[in-house]
Amino acid sequence: MNIGAYGEVMMRLTPPEYKLISQTDTVDLSYTGTGVNLLSGLAQFGHDTTLLSALPDNQVGQAAAGALRRLQIDTRALTFAHQHLGLYFLERGYHPRPSQVTYLNRLDSAFCRTTVSKTAIKRWLQPLDAVHICGIALFLTEATRETALAVAEQAATANIPVFFDFNYRPSLNETTDRSVIKATYQRMLPHCSVVFGSERDLTASLGMVGNDVIGQCLRQFELDAFCGTLKTAETMQGFIRTMETTVVSKQSAIPTFDRIGTGDAFCAGVIDGMLAQQSLQQTVEFATAAAVLAHTTFGDSSVLNRAFVNQFMSGNAPAVMR
Amino acid sequence: MNIGAYGEVMMRLTPPEYKLISQTDTVDLSYTGTGVNLLSGLAQFGHDTTLLSALPDNQVGQAAAGALRRLQIDTRALTFAHQHLGLYFLERGYHPRPSQVTYLNRLDSAFCRTTVSKTAIKRWLQPLDAVHICGIALFLTEATRETALAVAEQAATANIPVFFDFNYRPSLNETTDRSVIKATYQRMLPHCSVVFGSERDLTASLGMVGNDVIGQCLRQFELDAFCGTLKTAETMQGFIRTMETTVVSKQSAIPTFDRIGTGDAFCAGVIDGMLAQQSLQQTVEFATAAAVLAHTTFGDSSVLNRAFVNQFMSGNAPAVMR
Amino acid sequence: MNIGAYGEVMMRLTPPEYKLISQTDTVDLSYTGTGVNLLSGLAQFGHDTTLLSALPDNQVGQAAAGALRRLQIDTRALTFAHQHLGLYFLERGYHPRPSQVTYLNRLDSAFCRTTVSKTAIKRWLQPLDAVHICGIALFLTEATRETALAVAEQAATANIPVFFDFNYRPSLNETTDRSVIKATYQRMLPHCSVVFGSERDLTASLGMVGNDVIGQCLRQFELDAFCGTLKTAETMQGFIRTMETTVVSKQSAIPTFDRIGTGDAFCAGVIDGMLAQQSLQQTVEFATAAAVLAHTTFGDSSVLNRAFVNQFMSGNAPAVMR
Amino acid sequence: MNIGAYGEVMMRLTPPEYKLISQTDTVDLSYTGTGVNLLSGLAQFGHDTTLLSALPDNQVGQAAAGALRRLQIDTRALTFAHQHLGLYFLERGYHPRPSQVTYLNRLDSAFCRTTVSKTAIKRWLQPLDAVHICGIALFLTEATRETALAVAEQAATANIPVFFDFNYRPSLNETTDRSVIKATYQRMLPHCSVVFGSERDLTASLGMVGNDVIGQCLRQFELDAFCGTLKTAETMQGFIRTMETTVVSKQSAIPTFDRIGTGDAFCAGVIDGMLAQQSLQQTVEFATAAAVLAHTTFGDSSVLNRAFVNQFMSGNAPAVMR
Amino acid sequence: MNIGAYGEVMMRLTPPEYKLISQTDTVDLSYTGTGVNLLSGLAQFGHDTTLLSALPDNQVGQAAAGALRRLQIDTRALTFAHQHLGLYFLERGYHPRPSQVTYLNRLDSAFCRTTVSKTAIKRWLQPLDAVHICGIALFLTEATRETALAVAEQAATANIPVFFDFNYRPSLNETTDRSVIKATYQRMLPHCSVVFGSERDLTASLGMVGNDVIGQCLRQFELDAFCGTLKTAETMQGFIRTMETTVVSKQSAIPTFDRIGTGDAFCAGVIDGMLAQQSLQQTVEFATAAAVLAHTTFGDSSVLNRAFVNQFMSGNAPAVMR
Amino acid sequence: MNIGAYGEVMMRLTPPEYKLISQTDTVDLSYTGTGVNLLSGLAQFGHDTTLLSALPDNQVGQAAAGALRRLQIDTRALTFAHQHLGLYFLERGYHPRPSQVTYLNRLDSAFCRTTVSKTAIKRWLQPLDAVHICGIALFLTEATRETALAVAEQAATANIPVFFDFNYRPSLNETTDRSVIKATYQRMLPHCSVVFGSERDLTASLGMVGNDVIGQCLRQFELDAFCGTLKTAETMQGFIRTMETTVVSKQSAIPTFDRIGTGDAFCAGVIDGMLAQQSLQQTVEFATAAAVLAHTTFGDSSVLNRAFVNQFMSGNAPAVMR
Repeated sequence: MNIGAYGEVMMRLTPPEYKLISQTDTVDLSYTGTGVNLLSGLAQFGHDTTLLSALPDNQVGQAAAGALRRLQIDTRALTFAHQHLGLYFLERGYHPRPSQVTYLNRLDSAFCRTTVSKTAIKRWLQPLDAVHICGIALFLTEATRETALAVAEQAATANIPVFFDFNYRPSLNETTDRSVIKATYQRMLPHCSVVFGSERDLTASLGMVGNDVIGQCLRQFELDAFCGTLKTAETMQGFIRTMETTVVSKQSAIPTFDRIGTGDAFCAGVIDGMLAQQSLQQTVEFATAAAVLAHTTFGDSSVLNRAFVNQFMSGNAPAVMR
Repeated sequence: MNIGAYGEVMMRLTPPEYKLISQTDTVDLSYTGTGVNLLSGLAQFGHDTTLLSALPDNQVGQAAAGALRRLQIDTRALTFAHQHLGLYFLERGYHPRPSQVTYLNRLDSAFCRTTVSKTAIKRWLQPLDAVHICGIALFLTEATRETALAVAEQAATANIPVFFDFNYRPSLNETTDRSVIKATYQRMLPHCSVVFGSERDLTASLGMVGNDVIGQCLRQFELDAFCGTLKTAETMQGFIRTMETTVVSKQSAIPTFDRIGTGDAFCAGVIDGMLAQQSLQQTVEFATAAAVLAHTTFGDSSVLNRAFVNQFMSGNAPAVMR
Repeated sequence: MNIGAYGEVMMRLTPPEYKLISQTDTVDLSYTGTGVNLLSGLAQFGHDTTLLSALPDNQVGQAAAGALRRLQIDTRALTFAHQHLGLYFLERGYHPRPSQVTYLNRLDSAFCRTTVSKTAIKRWLQPLDAVHICGIALFLTEATRETALAVAEQAATANIPVFFDFNYRPSLNETTDRSVIKATYQRMLPHCSVVFGSERDLTASLGMVGNDVIGQCLRQFELDAFCGTLKTAETMQGFIRTMETTVVSKQSAIPTFDRIGTGDAFCAGVIDGMLAQQSLQQTVEFATAAAVLAHTTFGDSSVLNRAFVNQFMSGNAPAVMR
Repeated sequence: MNIGAYGEVMMRLTPPEYKLISQTDTVDLSYTGTGVNLLSGLAQFGHDTTLLSALPDNQVGQAAAGALRRLQIDTRALTFAHQHLGLYFLERGYHPRPSQVTYLNRLDSAFCRTTVSKTAIKRWLQPLDAVHICGIALFLTEATRETALAVAEQAATANIPVFFDFNYRPSLNETTDRSVIKATYQRMLPHCSVVFGSERDLTASLGMVGNDVIGQCLRQFELDAFCGTLKTAETMQGFIRTMETTVVSKQSAIPTFDRIGTGDAFCAGVIDGMLAQQSLQQTVEFATAAAVLAHTTFGDSSVLNRAFVNQFMSGNAPAVMR
Repeated sequence: MNIGAYGEVMMRLTPPEYKLISQTDTVDLSYTGTGVNLLSGLAQFGHDTTLLSALPDNQVGQAAAGALRRLQIDTRALTFAHQHLGLYFLERGYHPRPSQVTYLNRLDSAFCRTTVSKTAIKRWLQPLDAVHICGIALFLTEATRETALAVAEQAATANIPVFFDFNYRPSLNETTDRSVIKATYQRMLPHCSVVFGSERDLTASLGMVGNDVIGQCLRQFELDAFCGTLKTAETMQGFIRTMETTVVSKQSAIPTFDRIGTGDAFCAGVIDGMLAQQSLQQTVEFATAAAVLAHTTFGDSSVLNRAFVNQFMSGNAPAVMR
Repeated sequence: MNIGAYGEVMMRLTPPEYKLISQTDTVDLSYTGTGVNLLSGLAQFGHDTTLLSALPDNQVGQAAAGALRRLQIDTRALTFAHQHLGLYFLERGYHPRPSQVTYLNRLDSAFCRTTVSKTAIKRWLQPLDAVHICGIALFLTEATRETALAVAEQAATANIPVFFDFNYRPSLNETTDRSVIKATYQRMLPHCSVVFGSERDLTASLGMVGNDVIGQCLRQFELDAFCGTLKTAETMQGFIRTMETTVVSKQSAIPTFDRIGTGDAFCAGVIDGMLAQQSLQQTVEFATAAAVLAHTTFGDSSVLNRAFVNQFMSGNAPAVMR
């Protein structure tokens, strides 16, 4: 299958050995973002992948593009413009110390300043079997909001299923009043097939109330599915809800080596299962297994192939594979 | 508040990735010591801090001073003299393998050879709200013993509370007979307000016997408090004992990423609480939380700020803080 | 004691921080192999050790030899010839993700192409108190098979006890038919005193059937002992079986820092105990403790000395040894 | 002496071993800026130093402040506010390949958004013997321009000599028309005692023409001195021009290990010599020597002490100092 | 333009900081080969590039493919098969110490064992504007020889110009008699348009004698051009010879940071110039400049873009580009 | 040949990338000393080597011994006792910045505290063809002086040639008066065959005066040869003086990658040539070439084999050896 994503690329800077920034003179560099992470996972599962995004027109932008290609993401739809890339520091936690994310300027990034033209979106969508949109784009800048909505609208028109990740981050929305937030989601959701989120997202962003906000959301926007994960400090469980049914994965213990991007691994698993028309149960188990394993690898992007995930699901992985 | 400490600065050399010295060609360098570790913690809690110590008058001494300033410790009271800095290798253990500390020569260090003058002590003490003395200094050399006692005596005279850490290390006392040890502590303790130690310290060093040696110690030396931690292989619990009462913290599981200096984090927490006139219960919980978290950060010195400790105490820290 | 081993030396390449090969631009290099690993362990226990093997006649071979000497293995019996060294990548797992071993070409290594002459074997064996042979050599090439058998035969003739590790790896035997495998083992086993393996090895390689294949093996080949370990995902237990009795160690939890070579640590422990005529129970406890601790150190080779193992067996190791 | 500087702090990210960004997964982090670099040099020469600047109010800002203290720069006058720190990547060149600097967003940094109050400036200036202002601040934002001018004006009023570095960067001035540039410099220069720059700076920024623009500048703004360096690809020479005389240093070969910040080392040397009322010739030789040596050390900040500079000036430095 | 290359991918392992293998426990990994290096250069010059080769069907092969994509090389024509990748250690020299290359097994690599089918070659060639063949392939194995010849023949038939690099390595040809070598080259050269080599290549491999072997070669095989470089210990000069003329570049000093792959940079420059129908003089200057600069970057592959090369050719590159 | 050396083992700590100690959080560890360095060189030239020395009886001592074995030095004559190893920091210079050595405590090292018994010396000397003694041992402690003299005396008695390196370091001799220094050398020199030093050593230590102090020394102590090197900032030249003749090597340019231990490489070359009864001219050329090349390798110990040295002497080393 051929899957595209619209989303931001950020640089992640990680001190070594669980150190704090103030304790280190070196950091590990990687390139990340919701779209990057899940396309990386989908590439591991055997799909062709392509990212619609923008990178700065300098050495850093070139390095980022190289890193995406290394992850098997096609970079030919990227725009190179402006001079800035959003970046964040990750001070990885060691349980019970939490990981700490520190963002530097994000709103002046190439991504945030770039509106992709209707024509370019159309050309990019043309060969795709599915498209994923990261909800953060809706509230960064006018440019990203309008691009995200245009991607959704054009995809829906072309009958390409839209997978949308709520990724509702109050901290990114501070200047926007509630009615604007709600209105924006209401422009997006009618184009979507599958949504990733939580009950809290629906109440906080759409102002939904009542016993079954997920059910309301499914019905109101005629979604095929609403998916997400339920996490405690030590466990994770995935769910997929459709108009007809709800399936829930086994609850798995989650290790805590590198915690960022595990939700994106879940998305990749769901997209993979749905496009292959796997059963919902198989899909939610596979996606949850992918998400659990994503806690055990360095970096935000999913890097384990299908064999690893299947072996973990089988419950009899050896300690050493030769 | 403005807090000073008298104690040694050592260099710590740590092989990477849990390797042994014999397995590595590179080591991590850091600068440590009881006083360094707890002042670093107190600086994170918002206090001004200053160290009374001596460093070699060479490039290594300058590097050490730079490292202390990086930890927010004022270095203007340091003496630069002689050529040696005590150092130790830390081969970090991986449970159930213990960590292994290997000391090289310590007794010829700048610290061990330097007697601080009465005048210099007086000038240093003048703006301080509290002073901490590491008990190891009592048995390294004549110079450190007399300096430690002079600091205690002058501080007491000036009504600056003295926090004293027993840190009784039989291995450092081999050439000293028991009566000398006892006599030395008996010179120190009358000047102290708060003492950190254990029952074993009191029996081994002061020769105390009976049911309640801590009570005896409190009464004999008219201490405000006697504090310490009770550790098992997997848990830790702090206590503060006063003439009137005993408070005990919750028992917490202790992770084992980097085990050195966690007692110093406890001291920092106690000093912070007492100077702010927090309740004893709040103080012991805060100090114990700081000590537990100190197991999760690289290096001996406390590097987490008050927000981290409070969040851990609240019991609902997220896996990732953004 | 003076102990020799015949076996391959391989280079191990390990990405840092649990990364995959595709995520890293640097790897850690070490030199490994069954013989290397157990001789390293025996050297830590105070024995003289010597390896019979072959290394490439180039800078890589010299580097490998230097690494063996660093581990206290005598390298004077090594042959330097040809240009290749077998190597493998180890992507260390993070539970529940398995470790992944990727071998590159092994069959053209100096080891696989070198037949050691009878005279050289004789000279090498002369001062030895025991010899260990890695079973993998039986199925790599004609050269290694005939050398392994010659070592065994000459040692037996000279009354030097032969410790043999089955190390049966179906993946290395793919081109060989079952009767050849069986016949080869039947040439080896009559020379052996102690064998390391499992029931599965005996059924798969020798085609043994029935209730008590280990007993059969002991009787048929007049072995002094048959030893091995029983592992679950989280625990390990050692056993030693003789004609008269079976002893089993305590079951221990196994940590998962670096999982390769832990069986070789067990062998080293058994050889050490048997040569010192320790009781079987003491021997199996010591060997199992060595194997458990080998999970906590970087690299395949055993690097902890007797004091570490004894302290772990005592059950009251401190968190930090000073 | 006690010297202050007003200027930006940036983070520098440097790939290892002369690699490009696209070739590396790790970078070295350091904290830099004109003011940082020269205060670091002045601290090495024995002066007290303090920086007036702003850092983000997060983990990155704290790490930056720690790094400044490590360089012996007093950080008590820093403002912690906003969330961004300007940063740049340095791909170090290897002759004849040039070094490549890639800036990411700079204008939203804490520094660029922070206006320091008149009162805070006054308090900061009070104990100072000299102040340095980086000309880049004049054209970043309104906030930095007004702060720079206020510092200059107040210092002049208080008879504290102002050292001003033109640092004219056309690339930072793109949106400003020539008359605004000229007018801004004309507001600054009357307050200055010593200016660092070049003929080209004067013609490009002040629109000066004629044979002797430096002489014009000296006279027009009643400067004590106008200083700078003349560089070719392989050599460097410093000059100091006063109303009465011009002195020129020996011409020195310049090595090319790390080329950024060498002009700041020259400034530090000039300030040091002038405050100590050294002869102009001694001052220019010392400053040029400091600048030459700054090419041989890692990072932008000057880190060599007076003994190193003097020894280099003597012309008979040994290959190894013991 | 769209350019393809047929050639081997190898792994290069480089100790850090000019160390020898025996001095290091870590190495830098990169992926290299004549085709890789020059396609990387051509991608920097703005071309589309694609490699025809084979990689092992395991984690190492996947990592190698990722590294190629990072260099902007299309990997869709790669075969994944077998288990081995050729590799070599590079101990970088520090003048006057030479660099030392140590090859491990190469002949069992996926590349050496893989014959690409006629159909696959045809499909791969179809969109190409030029193709490059590395002469080493002619003498590795039957599979690589026949594939190389088939690529050349099909390309010539399709009027796609063939650029052929002699890369004559006596050490790789030891088992082949001279007449076989000659015959093989004689099968290749008629298909070629441009050949890279030296006089020595022609005399040693084709047995040519006389004053003007390059002229003979041009005439005999009706080449468009014969190109190469003339190197001394400290300088380099490129030449292009056609039937009509000879052009020679300026002689340039060569720095010695990383010496491997610089000939491949020259090839990339020649191909770029010829496809763009630049003058021969411009072409040879550009190609030589690219080769000189390739000595200043880490790794074998060309990583500098056209702007860097042009600036170097202009002779007035700044020390620092901002 | 079988060559022994008596001398100290020190740990060297080297910041990466030409950084200062104050700029780094990691250092490279290596083990060094005059005896270590030259035995390493002699091992590269094919000799058996053994060191008489003492190491601390702890993890650091074990690591040091492993490092020596890696360099092919036999460690069976080492004493393990006490707890300290001398160490020094090397901040490598970048021309024209000098390298800076900072010693920490050296006099309490295992070496300085250990007197080797007469019997142990005898047993160690027995199989040796030559012995080397480092002159620094004469002035460290009573224990090292008496051991050095005993080694010399016993070797002379047994007709084993003694190679003695003056290594006169005024800084190590500060507490000793001139007459004691002179008397000590006068006890040593009668046992020596070949001495390494300079005219300055003879005037400063033995108080010799006049035109030809080397000639005086040769005659007075009946030496076979007096050898040394003459260095300028950029060149090096070796000499060997005997009673009959003086030979001088070509003058070579010296690169400046790592400058420590190059004199020891010269010693190794001289010993090699003399034991093989090479001509004096061949010997001095070989030794000087070895010393020049030692400037190009990391660490103090000689690590290049005879082929490297011969190739350099030939004057036509390629840039890359394959």
